[in-house]
Amino acid sequence: MHKQLLTVVKIGGKVLEQEESLKELLENFAQMQGNKLLVHGGGKEATDLALRLGVEATMVQGRRITDGPMLEIAVMVYAGLANKRIVSHLQAMQINALGLTGADLDIIRAKKRKVVEIDYGFVGDIDRINVQKLEELLTQAITPVIAPITHDGAGQLLNTNADTVASCVAVHMSGKYKVRLVYIFEKAGVLSDPTDNGTVIPHIHPELYLAYKNQGIISGGMIPKLDNSFEALSQGVQGVYLCLPQALPYLNTPLFSGTYISL
Amino acid sequence: MHKQLLTVVKIGGKVLEQEESLKELLENFAQMQGNKLLVHGGGKEATDLALRLGVEATMVQGRRITDGPMLEIAVMVYAGLANKRIVSHLQAMQINALGLTGADLDIIRAKKRKVVEIDYGFVGDIDRINVQKLEELLTQAITPVIAPITHDGAGQLLNTNADTVASCVAVHMSGKYKVRLVYIFEKAGVLSDPTDNGTVIPHIHPELYLAYKNQGIISGGMIPKLDNSFEALSQGVQGVYLCLPQALPYLNTPLFSGTYISL
Repeated sequence: MHKQLLTVVKIGGKVLEQEESLKELLENFAQMQGNKLLVHGGGKEATDLALRLGVEATMVQGRRITDGPMLEIAVMVYAGLANKRIVSHLQAMQINALGLTGADLDIIRAKKRKVVEIDYGFVGDIDRINVQKLEELLTQAITPVIAPITHDGAGQLLNTNADTVASCVAVHMSGKYKVRLVYIFEKAGVLSDPTDNGTVIPHIHPELYLAYKNQGIISGGMIPKLDNSFEALSQGVQGVYLCLPQALPYLNTPLFSGTYISL
Repeated sequence: MHKQLLTVVKIGGKVLEQEESLKELLENFAQMQGNKLLVHGGGKEATDLALRLGVEATMVQGRRITDGPMLEIAVMVYAGLANKRIVSHLQAMQINALGLTGADLDIIRAKKRKVVEIDYGFVGDIDRINVQKLEELLTQAITPVIAPITHDGAGQLLNTNADTVASCVAVHMSGKYKVRLVYIFEKAGVLSDPTDNGTVIPHIHPELYLAYKNQGIISGGMIPKLDNSFEALSQGVQGVYLCLPQALPYLNTPLFSGTYISL
């Protein structure tokens, strides 16, 4: 069977916080053809709100813990403020957006992370993506806008990393669709000189990745991002892209600028 | 054509704020047969959050104004916290709930209220209910859970009174469905002695209403509630009910206790 294309776009960070940059990003997203789906974080608005409310981030062994008050903040900022801001802007651009958490339509079930050494609190590790329901929405020309809040099926909301939500959705949807996974980025892509947006590495595959790592060209925070990308590719995703919002309409065209990652 | 039954239930106030009373209410809602739809407010959590954030309610001529910061609080509490709490509990009760604001799927368009004497700020007066989309959801056995946040179709979210959202949805859906509108209440119904839950008036119709008003039996805050109910009835809603959550599974049965309002 010929699979249709689906583009899963993850956005987060600064771009979400400013009305103008968010609108510009969403205009680029709106121009993309075919089935698409957005996963978002909440920038630093959750941290800001916690600060204003005097809710202190609980840290255990350097890890951030999602306690009850922090979960409420995450739900308010991600599922409320960020999600509805995105949905209302997309509607204004004639995109029939529908904001979702994992609880809505039971789209994403998760399990509260088991306490091994650290009790992470209300953090959810994804159990199941409701592929059929997401497919039904896409078939109705609906664009899902997914906030990184999941649920356990027993009435408990959980906080899940937005990058993980995006790659999990991409992997599970790849049984039905030819899936591209795009991480919108504050840089033009993976850079060989992190301070110079002109040094984008246009294509990375496993062999090149190993070479760049050995040479120290790719290091630090880029390593988990690329490891996750290769993991998604090995589980069925067709291609992963790291780019600026402006590159969104040009995926798979000669005009694309950013990093394309493949097996 | 034979119209199907649709029950529109409005919940708000204290019942939303406590986990236990909310769960009990939702269990009663879950037991109701047939097409159903929930509209909720946010209790006093919005006021509490404003207080904690030091955002003061702007009042003009005794009217509360929804300025920018207050709109953000409403979106966080109604569309985020309250909505997702309800959705996750309903999912745990095997109800396929979908949380919506007016912006999601463009369900409710509103216009920012015109400044006549007072500038109410980001308050939306409802323009249009997307009856077709709501019908599509109900046909898919989805239970919409609607937060009282609307949008103007141009990217602006707006705050709309939850009672108004409920009655507007009920009125517009009555073209396609036989609609019952239920206001869940902190009292057992309309009481002839407001301090005694044993004095529920079981049935009110226009003639009786007039008589009760003239006798001073119905007064104060009940008058706008009943006026709105009769308005909804005159626009096609079949029956309006004011009752405690426990009465929900017994609408239209001899076991119903509460007030039934009809033309």
